[in-house]
Amino acid sequence: MTPILLRTLRGETTERRPLWIMRQAGRYLPEYRALRAKHSFEELSRDPALAAEVTLQPLARFPLDAAIIFADLMSPVPALGHPVKFDPGPVIAHPVRTRADVDALKDPALDEIAPEVIDALRRVKQALDGKTALLGFAGAPWSIAAYMVQGRSSNGFPALRALAAQDSGLVFELLAKLTELIVRYTFRQAEAGADAVQFFDTWAGVLSLADWNRLVRPHLVQLLDATKPLGIPRIMFVQDAPHLVPAYADLSSEALAVDWREDLAALRHHVGPKKTLQGNLDPAVLLAGPEATRKAARELLSRVAPQGHIVNLGHGIMPEAPIASVEALIATVHEEVKR
Amino acid sequence: MTPILLRTLRGETTERRPLWIMRQAGRYLPEYRALRAKHSFEELSRDPALAAEVTLQPLARFPLDAAIIFADLMSPVPALGHPVKFDPGPVIAHPVRTRADVDALKDPALDEIAPEVIDALRRVKQALDGKTALLGFAGAPWSIAAYMVQGRSSNGFPALRALAAQDSGLVFELLAKLTELIVRYTFRQAEAGADAVQFFDTWAGVLSLADWNRLVRPHLVQLLDATKPLGIPRIMFVQDAPHLVPAYADLSSEALAVDWREDLAALRHHVGPKKTLQGNLDPAVLLAGPEATRKAARELLSRVAPQGHIVNLGHGIMPEAPIASVEALIATVHEEVKR
Repeated sequence: MTPILLRTLRGETTERRPLWIMRQAGRYLPEYRALRAKHSFEELSRDPALAAEVTLQPLARFPLDAAIIFADLMSPVPALGHPVKFDPGPVIAHPVRTRADVDALKDPALDEIAPEVIDALRRVKQALDGKTALLGFAGAPWSIAAYMVQGRSSNGFPALRALAAQDSGLVFELLAKLTELIVRYTFRQAEAGADAVQFFDTWAGVLSLADWNRLVRPHLVQLLDATKPLGIPRIMFVQDAPHLVPAYADLSSEALAVDWREDLAALRHHVGPKKTLQGNLDPAVLLAGPEATRKAARELLSRVAPQGHIVNLGHGIMPEAPIASVEALIATVHEEVKR
Repeated sequence: MTPILLRTLRGETTERRPLWIMRQAGRYLPEYRALRAKHSFEELSRDPALAAEVTLQPLARFPLDAAIIFADLMSPVPALGHPVKFDPGPVIAHPVRTRADVDALKDPALDEIAPEVIDALRRVKQALDGKTALLGFAGAPWSIAAYMVQGRSSNGFPALRALAAQDSGLVFELLAKLTELIVRYTFRQAEAGADAVQFFDTWAGVLSLADWNRLVRPHLVQLLDATKPLGIPRIMFVQDAPHLVPAYADLSSEALAVDWREDLAALRHHVGPKKTLQGNLDPAVLLAGPEATRKAARELLSRVAPQGHIVNLGHGIMPEAPIASVEALIATVHEEVKR
């Protein structure tokens, strides 16, 4: 039977709401921490066998409806000629800030783009039963550009905003190159078995709507147009950008994922019945324990109609989240009265 | 003559737009860095003579229309019985997370609340000519609570969100106590010579609108009601919370300050002609140099009607901002054709 997550993404009525958890393969899991005691984050993400193992860890413990490939926003960037290190976030030794820097970016062949992620995807696909969807993972152009121009994570990515003020044409060109990279990367992920893909636009919120419309939107339109022929549903995740959510809602992705600040019921009203919505329990609630998690999950389910809703957190699960809270969230979703 | 900033805040038509810069006393100034080479941040903020000197530094260099007292969001917190250290942001040794913690907060007398800031205000008031307004400074209750519950700066302040999910009544009570503290602190600042005050709500954006309405709004209403009899204009600054800006606009403060994500022209349309608006050039633009700063400043001035507009950045000036960019911003505002 087609995985419930995919049926929801196709607009079918399902027996219950599907559920997965952003960063479900991560530090809140003792078995992940055990692996990390033996391997660095870089080793885990660069060894396909280890990346596949990490991807599958939460599935062995919880009845989640999707596996999402263990990869980083920056995984496709080395193919452009920029090695990426982690300290602990991604670091680029030579930030991209000039015309020469943008011109020097390589035009990678398909099999040069994150081959370790593609290999890991194939391994996970083989290991999964037919009930669990396999999600691909890719950063959106602006959010990858944020690290490439800034060089590393930085509050608000001022170097990128400064470059956009100084030479918006250059930033536009960088974004066009990144878009082409991500299109190819998505093609490879679909070929390797991804049933759907989530695009992460993590840093768009530093822009005003006017700047976003000018600089970012054309590339997201291109990304969605160019990946549509792959035939896999695309989930667009935008976080920490409440002023941009209506603009993301108007894009052609099959699904929209938002953070905990959004009122999903109001968003459903805005987008109409066709688009799948994903989210959006506050991950901090899980820190308050299973009781608080159950209560917040019930509130979410009672506010948002089940049709076209994929339950998830509004951001990645935190390393400090107790396992009991995760179990409470899953149980609350599974216990919901069947339709 | 009454300072131009105050005349603008009172709704008068002025000869040009007033201008000041958030964090104008700070690390982008060589003379500030020279003082910091000799004194820690704590020393600067705890010695009234040094704090007054720092406050006045940017006025000696630039024709700005306001001095804002050099103080920290957490300056009034030691009066509650919680010493604050800096590493580099504020750190509370014993975070406030239980009923007992909230009950143990002291109820300080007026002269126990940040006496060093009050002393510095008096010194600055004496030193200023009559053309420059003196601005008081206070954190809003939620933004102070963020540090008190989390213990230190943390992306999204999850401990506060978790506590709000677990025991929102306790958070409400903490906010009520902080509101009373800030009311008294504002009273003292007005008495010491502050011509107006800016309330900084730096971390409200981590909340959904529904949670903000429930938890935060009642305290801001109380803060504004209780400080109205002081007769000094109140500027409410909210940043990184575009989904909450309309709610802040509906509060009774005489002025609303917003970050660079907002379209001030649209906001003017929303608030009507009476409320003063402050902002909102992207501080990252200054990194791109004086040309880019002039261009962005001209765009801002051309979009936003001059009446009731205080020019400022949309966030604190960055340590890396070139002095030449600051000069370009000020010159652009001063050169605007007189009305």
